Amino acid sequence: MALRLGSLVDALGGELHGDPALQIESLAPLESAGDGALSFLSHPKYQSQLAASRAACVIVAPSMREAALARAAGGACIVAEEPYLYFARVTQLWKRQHVRAGGPRIHPSAVIDPEAFVAPDAAIGALCVVERGARIGAGTVLKSRVTVGEDCVIGERCLLHPGVVIGADGFGFAPNEGAWEKIEQLGAVRIGNDVEIGANTCIDRGALQDTVIEDGVKLDNLIQIGHNVRIGKHTAMAGNAGVAGSATIGAHCTVGGGAIVLGHLTLADHVHISAASVVTRSILKPGHYSGLFPIDDNAVWEKNAATLKQLHTLRERLKALEKTIKS
Amino acid sequence: MALRLGSLVDALGGELHGDPALQIESLAPLESAGDGALSFLSHPKYQSQLAASRAACVIVAPSMREAALARAAGGACIVAEEPYLYFARVTQLWKRQHVRAGGPRIHPSAVIDPEAFVAPDAAIGALCVVERGARIGAGTVLKSRVTVGEDCVIGERCLLHPGVVIGADGFGFAPNEGAWEKIEQLGAVRIGNDVEIGANTCIDRGALQDTVIEDGVKLDNLIQIGHNVRIGKHTAMAGNAGVAGSATIGAHCTVGGGAIVLGHLTLADHVHISAASVVTRSILKPGHYSGLFPIDDNAVWEKNAATLKQLHTLRERLKALEKTIKS
Amino acid sequence: MALRLGSLVDALGGELHGDPALQIESLAPLESAGDGALSFLSHPKYQSQLAASRAACVIVAPSMREAALARAAGGACIVAEEPYLYFARVTQLWKRQHVRAGGPRIHPSAVIDPEAFVAPDAAIGALCVVERGARIGAGTVLKSRVTVGEDCVIGERCLLHPGVVIGADGFGFAPNEGAWEKIEQLGAVRIGNDVEIGANTCIDRGALQDTVIEDGVKLDNLIQIGHNVRIGKHTAMAGNAGVAGSATIGAHCTVGGGAIVLGHLTLADHVHISAASVVTRSILKPGHYSGLFPIDDNAVWEKNAATLKQLHTLRERLKALEKTIKS
Repeated sequence: MALRLGSLVDALGGELHGDPALQIESLAPLESAGDGALSFLSHPKYQSQLAASRAACVIVAPSMREAALARAAGGACIVAEEPYLYFARVTQLWKRQHVRAGGPRIHPSAVIDPEAFVAPDAAIGALCVVERGARIGAGTVLKSRVTVGEDCVIGERCLLHPGVVIGADGFGFAPNEGAWEKIEQLGAVRIGNDVEIGANTCIDRGALQDTVIEDGVKLDNLIQIGHNVRIGKHTAMAGNAGVAGSATIGAHCTVGGGAIVLGHLTLADHVHISAASVVTRSILKPGHYSGLFPIDDNAVWEKNAATLKQLHTLRERLKALEKTIKS
Repeated sequence: MALRLGSLVDALGGELHGDPALQIESLAPLESAGDGALSFLSHPKYQSQLAASRAACVIVAPSMREAALARAAGGACIVAEEPYLYFARVTQLWKRQHVRAGGPRIHPSAVIDPEAFVAPDAAIGALCVVERGARIGAGTVLKSRVTVGEDCVIGERCLLHPGVVIGADGFGFAPNEGAWEKIEQLGAVRIGNDVEIGANTCIDRGALQDTVIEDGVKLDNLIQIGHNVRIGKHTAMAGNAGVAGSATIGAHCTVGGGAIVLGHLTLADHVHISAASVVTRSILKPGHYSGLFPIDDNAVWEKNAATLKQLHTLRERLKALEKTIKS
Repeated sequence: MALRLGSLVDALGGELHGDPALQIESLAPLESAGDGALSFLSHPKYQSQLAASRAACVIVAPSMREAALARAAGGACIVAEEPYLYFARVTQLWKRQHVRAGGPRIHPSAVIDPEAFVAPDAAIGALCVVERGARIGAGTVLKSRVTVGEDCVIGERCLLHPGVVIGADGFGFAPNEGAWEKIEQLGAVRIGNDVEIGANTCIDRGALQDTVIEDGVKLDNLIQIGHNVRIGKHTAMAGNAGVAGSATIGAHCTVGGGAIVLGHLTLADHVHISAASVVTRSILKPGHYSGLFPIDDNAVWEKNAATLKQLHTLRERLKALEKTIKS
């Protein structure tokens, strides 16, 4: 299977330097691309890899045109304003070209309630469960073993990976003489268009109102989204992250892997949280926020961690010294 | 669908101020409750929301009776000793009233071993797996895609959400010349009554003896419980938390989201662990424990984290200064 | 069901002191082993438990031979070079002896693509999904509800626990005017021999090349492995851990529960990461590394955490003091 450079540029645009009849046989990163491979230079800092690359063709930004044309191994190049975005579209074209004839649109092993609505061109994979009142929008794909609970709504062109659970009960209990009394979770989950949800990620239904995931949100694997959370458009979250109940996350945010956002907090648009950081207060100003203990050799860490447990006292001692010296 | 105030108070008690014939059309939080909605005031600090609320009826504590009766929008109120608990029971009543005719008690797509025992009034959802020797108690509900492994026992009135895995092998290996030799996991999992387990949560079987979850425990989504762990009655754990093998957690504890309890430790009853904290030693005294790096603007965090890596040295320098000044 | 001591030693070797005809009725930890139980002493520090144990037979190292023979309760012992490894093999023997007649090798509810390859003696559990082009090696066992995606390869004698997802799309998007453009994930996952993967763990397919898990790797539950990660032979990772895209982890490493390795990093062989630590830079030297905030009483933690937010300033103040005193 292969793709002609000419048809690629016809489909995606860009300025081709090289033979349009050349056949691309694979897509590969710059450092490992061999003959027949198409690659890309996403950032000028990798320019040395460009010089050494044996790729048949490299996608570059206009500023890298000369460098691409001067490659020792020769070869073609495509000049595009945003090489990484261009490359993303190449992968999509490649996938469409190489896709094998599909299985059934709705796999016979899926369990779909007669009172659920599945758009005519949505696809439901093997062993999925779509419960009563759920709605699956046009062009949406549920891979295998996805559960969409009662009355939950998935928009158009979404992609839900295996093991995803939409609409399990939120975690709500009232204390009752030492035990916990269940608060029935009467809301649902509403997911916008163009949302991707990673394997085994869970989004709980709301207690009274709905949990809402807006258009274009991308969630990685094994993420927990609590009840009544709202995640704004085009926000992306990496694996193992967690958002506790009733938190509101703005649009265009990023949340790193393993990070946690506590309940009832608000994050403004364009807030970026580093991996493994814990958001313990609302963040109303766009920016980049972090909070993680730096890793170190275990022996060094032990000493520093032990000292950290007396940090407040150290500060008091420092204050006392300052006072002594002043007087 | 609606619920008369009078029938609500008949069922749950409380002191009604208002027209028993009034129809409640929805349940809603105080700040968004509109006409026809029933709401509640869980804490005096939200009293300003009470004054402004347009809810048809509000559940309040006795101390808030006058404030509720004086609402600008008028409307009914129910006075109850514990409004939040009362409201939990309203959600249960609401759910029972609004539940639609159910599907089959045991979904035909579930795979139940002939040597498993399922109580006559337990419900097994679509695409569940109940293995040989497993026992599912009366009134217990397995939602879709739950696995209960060989010989594992689930008590009465439990609720297991989609994707739960009970009784996978514990993580046990003996080192063998650089490789790992499997220790077969010969115990099972025993879960008490009234336990709720969130979506995609995993509870491993014991190595030799059983992993035990006592009555009334509530586990959120995506939690990992290692082999031979014991969790005491009415303990609640939030999403993404993890408990390593052979840890013993007492009764009436709470463990925050993403927190981790290391193996072989003991937590007393009534121990509360903050989100994302790591329990590295046994905690034998009831109380509230925390250990997480405070989040900050990334640039500030970087400076503090860099200094933290020399904290022990700073302490030595401080000591030296103190000595110098003394002499 | 029982096992004769004589047949045990015939199968596994070791030096038996006691009656070969003695029937072992259970396997148990030293402190709870009763009559009829076989136990083991893995480390001299538990010697006091040995003295008090009522186990019918105890596996001990040569250095503990005399202590084992001198037990107050009498009883047999087996002397073996590595008691813990010996015990691991006993559990395997026990399991083989006690295994009940199996169900079908390929459960009829599994959904296996006609273009997938399943080795003749592999076992596929209930409600698994094996997609087109996937390959399941000899002796490999998929427990229930496992998904193996298109073109992914699982080696020989692997064990995949319920809910595992192999080959979901890696998390790859190019920014496009505030939205995210999908980078199709065109690689697959290749898993070696003798790999064990815990419940609900996810291993994503590579973007262009494959994600690779080498022979003998052991992964616990709820772990996230990003695209293009490579994990070296016999490395073990505990529950809730996460490895971000394109990280390379060496052989014989251990990664503690909840630890996170950021993307594109390299860990050498024999690197050991403590639980809940975050690896933010490559680690090229074998050793033990940690980075977690010590847990403390909440009030103490609050003071120390607050001071930590001004740590850099404290350092500056300390420096200033030092200067003052010098001059």
